[in-house]
Amino acid sequence: MSDDIVTLLSGFQSYLAALDIPEKPEGLYGPVRYALTLGGKRMRPLLLMLSYRLYGKDIRQTYDAASGIEIFHNFTLLHDDVMDKADIRRGKPTVHVKWNENTAILSGDAMAFLACRYMERVPDKYRSKVMDTAYKAFFDVVEGQQYDMDFENRTDVTVDEYMEMIRLKTAVLPAASMMIGAVLGGASDADALTLYDAGQKMGLAFQLQDDWLDVYGDPKVFGKNVGGDILCNKKTYLYIMAGNLADEACRRELDTWAECRNCDPKEKIAAVTAVYDRLGVSERCREKIDKLFAEAMDMILSLDADKRQLSVLVGYVTEILNRQL
Amino acid sequence: MSDDIVTLLSGFQSYLAALDIPEKPEGLYGPVRYALTLGGKRMRPLLLMLSYRLYGKDIRQTYDAASGIEIFHNFTLLHDDVMDKADIRRGKPTVHVKWNENTAILSGDAMAFLACRYMERVPDKYRSKVMDTAYKAFFDVVEGQQYDMDFENRTDVTVDEYMEMIRLKTAVLPAASMMIGAVLGGASDADALTLYDAGQKMGLAFQLQDDWLDVYGDPKVFGKNVGGDILCNKKTYLYIMAGNLADEACRRELDTWAECRNCDPKEKIAAVTAVYDRLGVSERCREKIDKLFAEAMDMILSLDADKRQLSVLVGYVTEILNRQL
Repeated sequence: MSDDIVTLLSGFQSYLAALDIPEKPEGLYGPVRYALTLGGKRMRPLLLMLSYRLYGKDIRQTYDAASGIEIFHNFTLLHDDVMDKADIRRGKPTVHVKWNENTAILSGDAMAFLACRYMERVPDKYRSKVMDTAYKAFFDVVEGQQYDMDFENRTDVTVDEYMEMIRLKTAVLPAASMMIGAVLGGASDADALTLYDAGQKMGLAFQLQDDWLDVYGDPKVFGKNVGGDILCNKKTYLYIMAGNLADEACRRELDTWAECRNCDPKEKIAAVTAVYDRLGVSERCREKIDKLFAEAMDMILSLDADKRQLSVLVGYVTEILNRQL
Repeated sequence: MSDDIVTLLSGFQSYLAALDIPEKPEGLYGPVRYALTLGGKRMRPLLLMLSYRLYGKDIRQTYDAASGIEIFHNFTLLHDDVMDKADIRRGKPTVHVKWNENTAILSGDAMAFLACRYMERVPDKYRSKVMDTAYKAFFDVVEGQQYDMDFENRTDVTVDEYMEMIRLKTAVLPAASMMIGAVLGGASDADALTLYDAGQKMGLAFQLQDDWLDVYGDPKVFGKNVGGDILCNKKTYLYIMAGNLADEACRRELDTWAECRNCDPKEKIAAVTAVYDRLGVSERCREKIDKLFAEAMDMILSLDADKRQLSVLVGYVTEILNRQL
């Protein structure tokens, strides 16, 4: 990680750690503090700060909005983990496991209002742009989670529908973070929108990378067991693409593995991966990732902004994309 | 209901029904529309509008804030019903029953952001006062729900703790509604605070009235079965006060009924009510209600505002208090 990033990150972390979150009731705010200190890359705050620095000098101007975005992101993780019944987050027990489900719902609610409250501390002259962007993103993310749940009960999800779902659920928040950073720095509307579009393409690339790593990643580097998506028949880019490209024989094989109840997990992962390989979906996925990422980088580099700061931003997003390869 | 109230209510209902809530995803916003059209007295919007009219003329100035408060209130009902596993709300199935728990969580989240978004549409010159008041209330209500859940696992809840819990959970929102209405009408800070304090006392009176009606109400008028709180050993004002006043014999009787698992519900309600009667907790509760309500009315009537509008406000809150007697 570059010195710039380390410095930005440590400034933000100090601010986040010192947020004015009440002590009592401990049953409500204890889990909020726990969720906010579980770690995470703080990618969205960093994107916001790095985008700000393309135009602005006083990084402290970004801390409230960056906190708002990070609290919102952690709020979604908290409630999503309840809905998905996920037990572990960043190597630690999730809030509904460590406490209980009601606590996770209510502490998440408190975080939703905290997120809005911190976003709201934006200077008056940027208020309407920042709040429009933030709320649009908040609703998009919630809608994306709804589509993700809807897709679990459908067998006919198209690639376009999938891309729209991950755009809402995961790509819009980094995009909004970059746009808000630019607005706070005084960027033109055109530049702010370019950063939004670039952030969205980048966010899509990150999510497809995540899908790809779940099948092809090195488990030591990836930090999760490979094949988890295959085991639970998750409709990822690879899964949907394989369905599209499959001939009759491949489709039967995929369906058989999808329906099997007591099959050996390793065997299922190996067999489905072999079908993916035969159909070339790994390459298709990587091409899509590379294309989206290259487009995002071109958009960022087209900006008429501080060159050194542009290279720090590009360096950071490239590092994120490559971190887990 | 007076003509004034009917007119105000119908104007607000039309605005609420026409709110810009997206069509899709239907799985997310369908339950939001359902929750907002289940009915309810719209007490908080009416308090906001009636307080506005003490000072202001253009009632449409209040619709966004009144919608924000009403959406927030219905958001809390939605998530509280999930936490309390309540199946029925206003005679209809709750969202987590009609759909499922995940839908109730996520649609509630959407409502939380909708509430903030509508509050936020306040004119710039009143923004900081209105938003400070609204967010303070939002956090208070969430904290109140936490204390309410905490109290379920405690046997040593004091009257003061109980009053503080219901202040947060139920009294603060009507109070904030009245203060926000006054602010939007251009009231002085002193008047706005007086209405807040009056609203809080009134809200406490309403909740104690609810506790009292659960034991002494006429089931035909009350709309709920009498004795529900006694059956589930809910720590209400009556229950805590009875514990305070009980001698050794009464305490043993109360404890025995609290611990009995398979006793006849009617017998338990009758026996506990008999102990309450012996200890005079009904009178204590009614005295407390009357005192709080009289103080609230005195505070409202002390305001130097439009006399006719003052009497409409006082008439409305008196009607609410008496509606269920």
